[in-house]
Order: sequence, then structure tokens, then C-alpha cells
Amino acid sequence: MAQQHLEPTDPLSGHVRQVTGDALAAYLRSQATEFLRALRQHRESGGAAAGVEEHVDAARALRRSVRRVSASLHTFRPLLDTDWSESLRPELAWLSGTLGMEHAYESRLERLLLALHRLSGAVFPTQPTAAVPSGSARTAPAPDRGNLTVGAAKAGALLDRQLTLARTRAHSTGLQALGSSRFHAVADHIAVLASEVPLTKAAPTTGLHPYAAAAQERLEVAVTALPLVTAGHPYNAEALIHGLSPDPSPHPQDAPWHQVRLLLRLHRYAREVLAGDGPPVDLRLHTAGPCLDRHRDASEAAAAAAAAARTPRIAPATAYALGVLHADQRHEVEAARFAFQQCWQKQAVNS
Amino acid sequence: MAQQHLEPTDPLSGHVRQVTGDALAAYLRSQATEFLRALRQHRESGGAAAGVEEHVDAARALRRSVRRVSASLHTFRPLLDTDWSESLRPELAWLSGTLGMEHAYESRLERLLLALHRLSGAVFPTQPTAAVPSGSARTAPAPDRGNLTVGAAKAGALLDRQLTLARTRAHSTGLQALGSSRFHAVADHIAVLASEVPLTKAAPTTGLHPYAAAAQERLEVAVTALPLVTAGHPYNAEALIHGLSPDPSPHPQDAPWHQVRLLLRLHRYAREVLAGDGPPVDLRLHTAGPCLDRHRDASEAAAAAAAAARTPRIAPATAYALGVLHADQRHEVEAARFAFQQCWQKQAVNS
Repeated sequence: MAQQHLEPTDPLSGHVRQVTGDALAAYLRSQATEFLRALRQHRESGGAAAGVEEHVDAARALRRSVRRVSASLHTFRPLLDTDWSESLRPELAWLSGTLGMEHAYESRLERLLLALHRLSGAVFPTQPTAAVPSGSARTAPAPDRGNLTVGAAKAGALLDRQLTLARTRAHSTGLQALGSSRFHAVADHIAVLASEVPLTKAAPTTGLHPYAAAAQERLEVAVTALPLVTAGHPYNAEALIHGLSPDPSPHPQDAPWHQVRLLLRLHRYAREVLAGDGPPVDLRLHTAGPCLDRHRDASEAAAAAAAAARTPRIAPATAYALGVLHADQRHEVEAARFAFQQCWQKQAVNS
Repeated sequence: MAQQHLEPTDPLSGHVRQVTGDALAAYLRSQATEFLRALRQHRESGGAAAGVEEHVDAARALRRSVRRVSASLHTFRPLLDTDWSESLRPELAWLSGTLGMEHAYESRLERLLLALHRLSGAVFPTQPTAAVPSGSARTAPAPDRGNLTVGAAKAGALLDRQLTLARTRAHSTGLQALGSSRFHAVADHIAVLASEVPLTKAAPTTGLHPYAAAAQERLEVAVTALPLVTAGHPYNAEALIHGLSPDPSPHPQDAPWHQVRLLLRLHRYAREVLAGDGPPVDLRLHTAGPCLDRHRDASEAAAAAAAAARTPRIAPATAYALGVLHADQRHEVEAARFAFQQCWQKQAVNS
């Protein structure tokens, strides 16, 4: 991917269209508006009458706009009022982290229960499940224990207990956060942003391309540092190395991939800013991104299975099932790296 | 691979050389001679003064010739005296099975301990290990427990105990077998075979190709029934399905692959008979075969880890490590299938 790919050309003149700080302001205004709309929807759907699905959609939309505002503040920092952006960025990171936890625990549990069923050779029952009383959605499937071995069933029950507890706590933390004065301060900032973006004096006429190109370069440098040759060999067995290591933080090998995932997101959002209302951002980024999401999800699910196995006084059959599950998710990690390598290679060839 | 690939051409005339029962007789005589040589070496090396390595080599050579004689009796059955071959074949199967057990347990333990070390991220210490008192070789590495977690170390110790016991028993059974009157009867038969092969009357001038072609066809039909499309997709996660199934015989999916392994061996030996002293048998068979050996070894190692996890009163950490190990070996099974698919596909394209 060369830098000129970032430069949208005018379909009529064929000339490169100069995208400036004005486009950044428009993008930030629209994301702030999205945030306010999602927040209103979230508050309305929090009531007893509203649907769970609507509530979940609103939470997702909130996180979505927070991530984009935060990323834009990072990538286009020199074009924005320094004090304003430096004070807002950590608040957005806090909000994004807090709002994401509940969903993370929920999807982690769902992933692990699905894997347990797959490993048990059980036909998976897709049942609509009831919402938990707190109003948050419960999309994790109810495991049909009849099809599982004792070990798999006990492992499923243990994970269900631990991750549901974590999710419930995250839900409470999220509700507290949304009611806090800290949140209201962030919301006020974003409300201002919806009408007035604090650009620097020069920004409206400053080109955005160098900043977007820098984001892309940071991504490419990080990808270059990944062990892509190994990842491109199927069944390289790298992801399970250290799977039984005495090291309590067993997978430092995942960190560079997580970092690339974040840089890919920054690059993608930067391209969104440049594209404005134009055609959608390069579809290839939409295939590389999910590979890295899958990598992150499997990595965290594997860690959750390992953590559950450290619960005192569990039965050996439970521990055995958690060991199989851990290894299964580590192989998912390896599979995700392979998929990313394939996707990235294709991108490099095509561009 | 079409049938004419089986027909060796005369390098001078370019014509297909007709290989008849005479070549089968020569092959059987030479394999019987190999057997007798290996048996003599085995007996000599069984004494206190002889080296362990020599003893192991002799045992391997014994198994090697027994397999080839047995396979030839099967593939070229109609060319041999029926009563003679029908009475000898089950005896060869018994001998081959009995002699192979000790080596199987030994290499299974070695595979599992190596995997435990890999999973622990430990640098593997390759130490020459002492022979067990019975005179059998002990090539399994001594695990350096200091690099392992408690669970991995305990799992390694448990497997070491169980598989060493099984190997010691197999060693005794093997010694008993070699001293039995049943064995002496087989050895007498093979001694006769070294000088006089009981061909049918028509056999010396009967062509071998149709029989070898039939062996190849049986192989190809069996390969066609394998799920090669799935196997060709890396990380298809098929091998671990049913990994936690309540089914006590958890991997019926392996059976067709084991069957192809045996048919590939029959095909290879049939080609050896046809090649005589000529050029070596198609090298591609030598790449497909090891994939299926690896498949079988990993399948059995995974089963041994699962069986060890059913030992009563083991610690949860031990069971967890055995679960990780089981899943690791099931992924080896999947990797071996992928490797076979790649190799077979290449063969199909080239032929």
C-alpha cells in the first residue's frame, strides 16, 4: 500500500482532491452527533419497557463513536487545540474501556461455551435466551449439559459462573460510569464538539494526508515486525509454545499482534476521515481487521480457560476439559494469525 | 498415478519389462534372508556385552522383513501355495504386532515428553539416557523438571510411569514370544522361504503387474473416501471435534486414515517387488507415508494423554496439563492430515 492510495481523486477532473482540517471537523461533528444520539437512545432503552436489543445497539453505537473521536484526536493531534485534546483523550480511553468490558465478558463466555460444545461433538442448540434482570442482553447460549461429558459440563458451568459474575460487575461499573460526574463532563465536551470543533488556526486549510500517511506507516512498520513467515506456515505450533509455561503472564507473543490490531483501527479511522461522505474505505482493511479481532478474542478466551483451571478444589475432569479448551483457543490464535498473514499478503500483492 | 507407472521400462530397449512370479520369489528369498540375519544379530546382541543400539537395530530389521513378507503374501496371494500362505500370514501378523509394541510405547513416551517440553517453552535437553536393565534401549529423553510447571512435571512423571510400565511389559512379552515354540515354527517357515518359495505352478511366468495394480487401486479408492477437501483447509479444527465427547472411543474419524496408511504400505512393498534390484520406488510415496505415520503416532499419543487423565486421584494441575497435551496432539493429527493432503495433491498433479 503506497501513500498515494490515500489521496482520493476527483472522479471528474482526475486530480487529487486536497482534504484539509475542514473535513476533520466535519467528521468529528458527525461522530459527536452519533454519540449524542446513541446516548439518548441508551437512556431511553434503559427503562423497563424498552427492548434489550435496542439497549445493546445503543451501547455499541456509543463505543463506536467514542473510538472514532479518540482515534481522530490521536492521529490528527497537531490540527487540534492541544489543551482540549490532551484533556479529552484519557477521558475517552476511560469511557471506551469501561463501556467495552461487559460486552467483552459476554462474548468471551459465548465463545468458550461454543467451543466446549464443538469439542464435545454436540449439535449446538441455538436458543433465544432471556435477558438478565439488570437489563443487559444475554446472548451467550445456554449449554445443553446432556450432550457434554461431566468434565466439559463442569468446565462450562465454572466458566459461566466466573464470566457471568465478571460481566454483571462490568455492567454495574458501566451504569455507575454513565451516571458519574466524570461522564457528564465528557458528554458535555462531546456536545460542544457536535457544533464546534477546536481546530488550530492553520488547520482548516492544512492537508490531512501526511497525518493519515503517518498512521499507515506506523501500521506497516508494526506489521513488518510480526513473525509473518512463521504465521504463514499452517500448523506451526507457535501459539501453544509456553502454553504450560510457569510464567504467570504466558503469552507475551500476543502483544505485537494486539498492537497491530490497534494501529490497523487507527489507520482505518484515518481513512474514514479522508473519505468523508465518499466511497467506503478499502474493503481489504475490513478483512484484516476481523482476523485480529479473532486473535484478540481467542487469546483472551484461552487466558480465561487457564484462569478458571486455577480455581481451587476443582475436579480433575474439569481441569482436563479446561486444558483442552485452553489449547483449542490457542490454536484459534494461531489460525487467526495465519488468516491475517494470508489476507495481508494478498493486500501487498494487489497494491 | 496411472497403472502404466507400475511397469518398469527397460532402459535400453524402452520396452516394458515383464515382471513375473520369479521376481516375487527372489524378493521373498531376500526378505527371508534379511529376517534370519536380523534374528541372529538380535540373539547375539541380547547378551550382556552387546550394545543397546545394535539390539534395537536388529529388532527394527526383524520387524521390517516380517512386514514385507506378510505384505507380499497378501498382495500376491494367488501366486503362492494357498495352505502355506494362509497358515503363515496370521503368524506373521502376530509376530509383527508383538515385536512392534515395545518400540511403539517408547516412541509414544518420547513424543509426549517432547511435546510437554515444547508446551512449557523449555529448551529441550538432549541427554543420552541409560538403557533399562532388560537390555532394551531407552531413547526417551529425561525431562528436566526444573523448567516445567508443577502440572506439566506431574503429567510427564505420570506418563513416564504408565508408558514405561507398558513398554517393560511389551519387552517381556517380546522376549517370551521370541523364545516360544510358536515363534520357532514361524522362524522355521521363514528359513525354508530363504531357499525355496512355494509358488504355484503357473506363477513363475505369471505377470505381477495386475496384483500390484490392484493394491494401488485399493489405496486410491481408500484415499478418495478421505475428507481431503476439509483436510486441505488449514486450521479446520476437525481433529479436536469429539475431543471431549462422552464417547469412550473418541476418535473413529482416525480409522480411515489408519487404513490408508496400511494400504499405502502394501502399495509401496508391491512396488518394491516389481522394482527388484532396479531404481528405488517412487520417492513421493516416501513423503506420503511419513505423514500417515505421524498421524497414527499423534493419534495414539493423544489417546495416551486422555487415558492418563482418567487415572484416579490426580491433581487438577496434572489433569489440566494432560488436557493441553491431548489437544496439542490432536492438532498434530490435523497437521498430519493437512501435510498428507498437500503431498497427495502434488502427486496427483505430477502424475
